[in-house]
Amino acid sequence: MAFFNRQMDLMQQARASSTFNPMKLTVVLYDNEATVSSRRAAFHRVENALGLHDNMKLPHIYSGLDREGLYLEGVRRARVITHDMITHGHNHFQWLNERYQICNSSPFGMNFLMFRRTIELQGTADQRRYWLQEIDQMRINGAYAQTELGHGTFVRGIETTATFDVGTDTFTIHSPTPTSVKYWPGGLGFSCSHAIVAARLITRGKDHGVHMFIVQIRSLEDFAPVCGVELGDLGMKMAYNGTCNGYARFNYLRVPRSSLLAAHAQVSRDGTYGQAQTKVGTLPVSKRVYSTMLDTRRNIVRCVAFGLAQAVTITTRYSIVREQGRLMFSDATDEEAAIIMFKSQHYRLLTLIAQSYAILFAAKDFDVRYDQLVCEQEKDDHARLPFMHALSTGLKAWATTIASAGATEARKMCGGHGFVALSGLPEIEGTVSATVTFEGENYVMWQQLVVYLFKQVKALCSGQDVDIEVKDYMGGVRTYLDEETFPSRIQGCGKEKLFDGSTLLLIYKERSQRLLATAYSSYREMCNRCSAAEAWNTCMMTSLAAGQAFVEYIVIESFLKRISSLDTEDAPISEALSHLFCLFALTTITSPSPSFAAGSFLEHGLLTSDELNKIRVRVNELLAHLLPNIAALTDAWDFTDSSLCSALGCKDGNVYERLLSWTRQLPANSGRAVEKAWEASEGIEEFFKASRL
Amino acid sequence: MAFFNRQMDLMQQARASSTFNPMKLTVVLYDNEATVSSRRAAFHRVENALGLHDNMKLPHIYSGLDREGLYLEGVRRARVITHDMITHGHNHFQWLNERYQICNSSPFGMNFLMFRRTIELQGTADQRRYWLQEIDQMRINGAYAQTELGHGTFVRGIETTATFDVGTDTFTIHSPTPTSVKYWPGGLGFSCSHAIVAARLITRGKDHGVHMFIVQIRSLEDFAPVCGVELGDLGMKMAYNGTCNGYARFNYLRVPRSSLLAAHAQVSRDGTYGQAQTKVGTLPVSKRVYSTMLDTRRNIVRCVAFGLAQAVTITTRYSIVREQGRLMFSDATDEEAAIIMFKSQHYRLLTLIAQSYAILFAAKDFDVRYDQLVCEQEKDDHARLPFMHALSTGLKAWATTIASAGATEARKMCGGHGFVALSGLPEIEGTVSATVTFEGENYVMWQQLVVYLFKQVKALCSGQDVDIEVKDYMGGVRTYLDEETFPSRIQGCGKEKLFDGSTLLLIYKERSQRLLATAYSSYREMCNRCSAAEAWNTCMMTSLAAGQAFVEYIVIESFLKRISSLDTEDAPISEALSHLFCLFALTTITSPSPSFAAGSFLEHGLLTSDELNKIRVRVNELLAHLLPNIAALTDAWDFTDSSLCSALGCKDGNVYERLLSWTRQLPANSGRAVEKAWEASEGIEEFFKASRL
Repeated sequence: MAFFNRQMDLMQQARASSTFNPMKLTVVLYDNEATVSSRRAAFHRVENALGLHDNMKLPHIYSGLDREGLYLEGVRRARVITHDMITHGHNHFQWLNERYQICNSSPFGMNFLMFRRTIELQGTADQRRYWLQEIDQMRINGAYAQTELGHGTFVRGIETTATFDVGTDTFTIHSPTPTSVKYWPGGLGFSCSHAIVAARLITRGKDHGVHMFIVQIRSLEDFAPVCGVELGDLGMKMAYNGTCNGYARFNYLRVPRSSLLAAHAQVSRDGTYGQAQTKVGTLPVSKRVYSTMLDTRRNIVRCVAFGLAQAVTITTRYSIVREQGRLMFSDATDEEAAIIMFKSQHYRLLTLIAQSYAILFAAKDFDVRYDQLVCEQEKDDHARLPFMHALSTGLKAWATTIASAGATEARKMCGGHGFVALSGLPEIEGTVSATVTFEGENYVMWQQLVVYLFKQVKALCSGQDVDIEVKDYMGGVRTYLDEETFPSRIQGCGKEKLFDGSTLLLIYKERSQRLLATAYSSYREMCNRCSAAEAWNTCMMTSLAAGQAFVEYIVIESFLKRISSLDTEDAPISEALSHLFCLFALTTITSPSPSFAAGSFLEHGLLTSDELNKIRVRVNELLAHLLPNIAALTDAWDFTDSSLCSALGCKDGNVYERLLSWTRQLPANSGRAVEKAWEASEGIEEFFKASRL
Repeated sequence: MAFFNRQMDLMQQARASSTFNPMKLTVVLYDNEATVSSRRAAFHRVENALGLHDNMKLPHIYSGLDREGLYLEGVRRARVITHDMITHGHNHFQWLNERYQICNSSPFGMNFLMFRRTIELQGTADQRRYWLQEIDQMRINGAYAQTELGHGTFVRGIETTATFDVGTDTFTIHSPTPTSVKYWPGGLGFSCSHAIVAARLITRGKDHGVHMFIVQIRSLEDFAPVCGVELGDLGMKMAYNGTCNGYARFNYLRVPRSSLLAAHAQVSRDGTYGQAQTKVGTLPVSKRVYSTMLDTRRNIVRCVAFGLAQAVTITTRYSIVREQGRLMFSDATDEEAAIIMFKSQHYRLLTLIAQSYAILFAAKDFDVRYDQLVCEQEKDDHARLPFMHALSTGLKAWATTIASAGATEARKMCGGHGFVALSGLPEIEGTVSATVTFEGENYVMWQQLVVYLFKQVKALCSGQDVDIEVKDYMGGVRTYLDEETFPSRIQGCGKEKLFDGSTLLLIYKERSQRLLATAYSSYREMCNRCSAAEAWNTCMMTSLAAGQAFVEYIVIESFLKRISSLDTEDAPISEALSHLFCLFALTTITSPSPSFAAGSFLEHGLLTSDELNKIRVRVNELLAHLLPNIAALTDAWDFTDSSLCSALGCKDGNVYERLLSWTRQLPANSGRAVEKAWEASEGIEEFFKASRL
């Protein structure tokens, strides 16, 4: 335990200024007190088992490990959290691990997430009976091997073949080209005994397209790769080094006919291919897969809310205790100011904090819609699936873009110290950044959302039914389509109360409606001159901007909903969250996230220059209101010190002593690097000049 | 040598479509043919000596090395390039190393950059005579130890003490607190025998403030730290792992009185402190330090142009050969499109390419001004120093912000493959990212620029002299200050030719003048209500936006200058660069870089919504014009395969075979990771469940 020092004092002062008890906000973030307690207990047990409680001790992960060392540490951690979930019957680490990273960053993470689910969805009753039990008793660990070196989201491009041989009643799994090598699947390199392999089913000389096979890839006796499979790891990554994203090259591997997941397609003993669909309700299987994707995406959105909040928590704490430089034109003699006092830091921090809340509340609002959808689907009502799928793509793209940019920004705000692994920020930044491209690259995601929205506009224009969720919204789009000029409907309807939630919501709604109408019109017009594909491609940047504006409108709505649903007993919390909402809405206007329509709040008279200036003044006022609560707003996320794993971000504020202590414990500093570099040379000139080690 | 394959064919086709010979553009980028040849020869020798010519061989740096291994590889490389420069008498690697990283990423990089320069500037004739020779003959390697754990750019905050003891005629260097430990200096951890140490000079009980001392920190016999100094490395960083940014903790280390760099301040034998200034010309030493900073900053700007260009070169090449998915609404059956054909990729790539050229041309234009300044300063004319200093801060902040965001974007554009170290992109992204905070954190830089601009406005308003470089510009600012409304001077003066260079320059100029006038007025007004420091801080976000707009105007001007100075014999090159210029100017309007005034092109009638739509259409046309030259525009930077060090970015386009080959060569794949994880458990359940390795 360190002696109380200046930094710890600054941190204590920052906490003392808060207008509410952060624990009460924690309950809002995690829904109820029981969850908060149960999570805390789980973190405590796990961190105890992993030996992480002494926060003055250098975390093993930062000790300069090589590739193998980082992986072994990942295995060690994954074992502990899995063990804890089984022993104590909870699922706190099912989606987010003990560092709030999404579970595919764990060597065992894909087992339940994708491997089990695929069997559940595509296996026959027999297959489910056998394999699900193996998985649940953890006798096997599975990967999901779809992506190939040359093929990503476009499943039809997959090249791996599974050719049926009637003589031996087996499929032969083979990688015919370099581009067909399975590449990237989580856990595939070292950790999995089995894999779902996506491969083209060929029987009687005919290619029936991509099907799923369950394939054993390692011996259960000694874990060596089975004959006919070459397995390996992809090496170092920006993050996720605790797992072994890997490759698999199949060399005429024979697997029994029963390897085909056969709920929806079968190959009979004589090699006949058949598609005896076992329908589950009225929804075809291909559509049911959407539900899985929905579930994954909503978890990604929640995950990056935590990722951004982690980064901002570290940076906030560091900014509270870091005294550096003086305010420009300051009369103070040699007193340095805490960097949080500089408006640039103050502004950026609170903007990012507001974004982390906005993402989490959007995730929660989506969860409510999702739960409702699940209920409806159980009653065989799938009407809302297209809207939900579209919204999930847009939310995923928006949240991961914002969170990734925000985590990077938070890291840069810690200066040089943020660049060092010990700050914890490079790892968090890398982890969040991965979500931008995985489970659907964001520019593909945006397009899927906009295609949905265009379809709805088209239905509207041709008098067909519009989905219930967007019916009201599309009404507003129509007026923009119909009118030659774009009269702002904002004027006269409440802009005197520019900062009311309802006015802000209206501004976001009108802006997105206008952008959507404009984008659709441009696209339709272009369709007269070229093919739909070319028209789409030509107009893409404008269309994507419309999609982004739609999501921003939904996010504003979700944030507002969440605030209004709060127990109003705790006025200071309500007030702080209202300020945070307003800051989020206004800074997204003054400093929009990059898009081809970044000026859209100002176009067509939506907002005037004068209103924009009022907004800028209001932003400054909100920053002042929120500053006393900045520690509380980040403390409320309830991150343990070891989940942040940061010398800069521990709760006590004891930044410098901890950073120095961790640095001095680095193994390289008691290692032989200097001697090795030195021994190879003879004297100082050689040390510098020798051209070979 | 690989067999010719589809990817290589796609790459060849992309090159065949170019309208000019990229080698001619290379000469434009490197100024003349002699430089291009000499650079090529140097790269060839160095890569040969380092064993990097076989681009199917896994680069050692990606082999999953631990902290020590990465450092030793850094030493090996630094030796080879240093040796080559000495042997062949060139300085191609003096600022940028063989990977186009700025030289402080090398274990020997600070020796000339900061160590030698400081002695040159602050040493007496005797000191210079002795030490410069030691350095030039490479008998010592020096670090520059100013930054402390708790103290960065604010030099007066430094805590390390150097107390003179008259009895022994020595200074005692000491680190009195944890925050006083020297932390971050490049090369300090393992590589340096000496260091310039910034410490408070105390003699006869009086603190005379921070002075520079030259201190031996390691033995020249065995390179062990001298007694009284604890040295160490900071561990892993996002990049720069080839050098050992380090810490030094002094424990009453005694050094001779002659350690004080004494050109400007001396301590006599009896402990008397004196400031017998040796003036060099009329400029005080404190101001001469600015010249050093200017030189460093212009090199950072050039460096990040190359860094961004490297990232974009890799991404461009990958996008040309990566076929993934189909265009939305496409009729094509199963043909996948190269991702460069998707407008989002096409738009983002060319926007980033345009930015890399804009940064390089801005650096070159600054170099011209800098050379002129050096001439003037030799004649003791320092009038342009304040402007040049301010411009250098703004350019550094702007270029590093743009380049860092761009390198990140380029990496994300490669999807999952970009996340893997083998792509080379994480290393480039990290390297560029470091420049955002080092040598002056960007938000500090922006403030310095705006303080300068405000001073000039103030001079203007009070009828005093305005610096010659901004005289004309300030005239325009005045009209915005004087007028109640802001009439756009663009209208009627050329907007019919919206896309002419001169119109675009005018738009940028007017926008920045208006923003500066507004920011200054707000600040002045606020000064009536509170202290200057508070007023500055309150208005900071608006002020910084004005600074950013000023730099963008200068960059537009520099780009135009460079184009007009081109030999017009090569019309296709001129045309391509003009298109690139226009794309840069227009995309900075449609998708402005984040700022508090992102909507400023639309405010006060500068551009109308209609004009904005015309701009969007023009952007699409420019993208189409530039696409055939996209390979040539990146090839022109003349990066060798091993300087890019990327499985995705080699010139031949053979992406997949190389990525697979490198992956299979990873040592972890023939290592014992699996066995180690497995051996600790007894059977498969234990493998997953055991809570301890």
